[in-house]
Amino acid sequence: MSHRLLVAQGGGPTAVINQSLAGVVLEARRHGADIQVYGARHGVRGIVDEDFVDLTQETVANLEGVAATPAAALGSTRDKPDLAYCQSIFKVLAAHRIGHFFYIGGNDSADTVRIVAEQAAAAGYPLRAMHIPKTIDNDLVGNDHTPGFPSAARFVVQAYAGANLDNAALPGVYVGVVMGRHAGFLTAAAALARKFPDDGPHLVYLPERVFELPRFLADVKAVYERHGRCVVAVSEGIHDAGGQPIVTQLAPTVEKDAHGNVQLSGTGALADLLCEQIKAQLKIKRVRGDTFGYLQRSFLGCVSDVDQREAREVGERAVQFALGPGAAAGGTSHGSVALRRVGDYATDIVLQPIAAVAGKTRVMEDHLINGAGNDVTPAFHAYLRPLLGGTLPETHRLRATPVAKLLGAGRKT
Amino acid sequence: MSHRLLVAQGGGPTAVINQSLAGVVLEARRHGADIQVYGARHGVRGIVDEDFVDLTQETVANLEGVAATPAAALGSTRDKPDLAYCQSIFKVLAAHRIGHFFYIGGNDSADTVRIVAEQAAAAGYPLRAMHIPKTIDNDLVGNDHTPGFPSAARFVVQAYAGANLDNAALPGVYVGVVMGRHAGFLTAAAALARKFPDDGPHLVYLPERVFELPRFLADVKAVYERHGRCVVAVSEGIHDAGGQPIVTQLAPTVEKDAHGNVQLSGTGALADLLCEQIKAQLKIKRVRGDTFGYLQRSFLGCVSDVDQREAREVGERAVQFALGPGAAAGGTSHGSVALRRVGDYATDIVLQPIAAVAGKTRVMEDHLINGAGNDVTPAFHAYLRPLLGGTLPETHRLRATPVAKLLGAGRKT
Repeated sequence: MSHRLLVAQGGGPTAVINQSLAGVVLEARRHGADIQVYGARHGVRGIVDEDFVDLTQETVANLEGVAATPAAALGSTRDKPDLAYCQSIFKVLAAHRIGHFFYIGGNDSADTVRIVAEQAAAAGYPLRAMHIPKTIDNDLVGNDHTPGFPSAARFVVQAYAGANLDNAALPGVYVGVVMGRHAGFLTAAAALARKFPDDGPHLVYLPERVFELPRFLADVKAVYERHGRCVVAVSEGIHDAGGQPIVTQLAPTVEKDAHGNVQLSGTGALADLLCEQIKAQLKIKRVRGDTFGYLQRSFLGCVSDVDQREAREVGERAVQFALGPGAAAGGTSHGSVALRRVGDYATDIVLQPIAAVAGKTRVMEDHLINGAGNDVTPAFHAYLRPLLGGTLPETHRLRATPVAKLLGAGRKT
Repeated sequence: MSHRLLVAQGGGPTAVINQSLAGVVLEARRHGADIQVYGARHGVRGIVDEDFVDLTQETVANLEGVAATPAAALGSTRDKPDLAYCQSIFKVLAAHRIGHFFYIGGNDSADTVRIVAEQAAAAGYPLRAMHIPKTIDNDLVGNDHTPGFPSAARFVVQAYAGANLDNAALPGVYVGVVMGRHAGFLTAAAALARKFPDDGPHLVYLPERVFELPRFLADVKAVYERHGRCVVAVSEGIHDAGGQPIVTQLAPTVEKDAHGNVQLSGTGALADLLCEQIKAQLKIKRVRGDTFGYLQRSFLGCVSDVDQREAREVGERAVQFALGPGAAAGGTSHGSVALRRVGDYATDIVLQPIAAVAGKTRVMEDHLINGAGNDVTPAFHAYLRPLLGGTLPETHRLRATPVAKLLGAGRKT
């Protein structure tokens, strides 16, 4: 087995994906001066293009700086290798005598690791392939949560805490659209922005439930009549009973990526559609929509310290699983590192079979969603709160002792 | 003259508008136990509705908590008083024996102060009315900058620093739309997100210059060909040679507010329109748009400490101008507090005539915009940098020593 390792990053960037990269590189370098760590630029594409950088040549100070920087420092890709692509991968891996492959990514990246490892086994190539979890969607099976999700959730919490105050200052309806194709975890995080009893978001719509426009409008109307305002969190992945995304009801032609996924992000269409419906059907004048877009996954300076630490750890543990005594004794040729909750709050890091996570999608468990399907439960609050990290900013409001009216109701304009 | 003061907040909320509120209340209370400070809920509307709270009943701890909380704690309004509205205001002010009125807001709010003060003078009512500056647009005449702008600029800088990294990881074109109807200061702030020579935003489009779609597309094409990607900052207020907002070319019916302003925020239409043009005309596949929306003015926990301090000071100084020895000696019955830069970096706080600021709009001075009209100048960097505050997060990248190719170009997919 060669002492040359290769690490790459796939899928959507996160605030802490470079922590995992630094974890891999620093831990690998600790295993001896004869260890060489290559990085592939832009995921598997960098492998087939032989586009490698020598991470053994990076200083510790710079690696720590990169670790604290959002988005994939090596570059990422949406490519999903087929058989021919994989054959190119082996050709390059063999030429460079690479024995270990670490791929930091989501369920599509895990599936890539699975295919690459299977093809390696079939070709008799001695490759040890490790998937390191990463996704703001929090949709990897077998993980309590995934690195990247807590920081994105923190962004959503801080965004909704502010949007709620803005909406209270200038009352109306506010609809924010949050990322998450199939899993509503990130949208659900908005609920933790509440502090006072009448704080928004007042309604939370998740892709785990069928979205019905008439029910949505009735919900908004009821909140608006009660509070004189309404703040809504909506997942970009909301769909009708037939599984059709609500956004496609607006846009006739919809872009798809290499995985066959409909493009839901990078457009404000869904927020605008819902706002138009509220204006038209409920006759409410001030209706505003925001699409959180790329800010929620790459905003510089909004990060959970718990997430930072765990993202570093999964990278470090991946190398320990691959190079440690257990690895020398044989064992699986590939696996997926996973975070398990063992306390309130503590985690264990385990290695699970790659097939357990590859290409599969975890969605929110039923007990995390309320009966009406328009909010989360206290169990979700308990689940998410420890992940958000320390020094979360807090909101305050005036106690506002009223002054007695002297003239009566005054002029109503 | 009564010892009863009234304070209110108008226009769009900011991250530090409550610092100015706390400045007014705490400084006023320092002037004696017989001073009473009322707050009007939702700006001038709270006056005509006699909807007051007694701010003398707030604890210091809670006022400090509110000061650190974004968005208008008293509530805000977009109402612009006409004559009848003003007569209602006097009726209420007289009934409550209010002698001082402090209105924290932008140029529309300053204009409200002007009208109210003029009507008071005409009616022989002894009112001292003060405008306290606030706006993320930074468009108040006679101010070096306005409280609220530095924190919003900091948000834009952190957002673009992250968006640039995201775009470098998954290359394509990224278009972010930033608030600012007539003044491009906030959009221009995106330029300070750059650290490395090839960092975005690569192009910055401001409402101070005519926006021509063909030139925009040529600019994007040139950057894309050079860097393989392109990050663009666009003001929501970009318009054609006829002054027509570019967004109205997309949306046939456009909402207007009480001031006759076209609604530019709260919709993702402009970003989507520009992205569609880039896809269609330049045949670039990965094109993504974000509209920063309300996040940029109310996001919890993104604030410039310089901005916090100055926002507190303008509120405090307003009371000193109104109640101090100069006030007792007579002087103007109304005025507008303004920030002036006196060093690098220090400020003075002055009182300027309300007519100098009311209803007027400052835009970016020519020397802050480059000749091509698609970027800022070094002078703008020097202007903005000290306002962003301390501990601005920094980005880092791998030095990325390349590994020699062994096979050649590899498979191009």
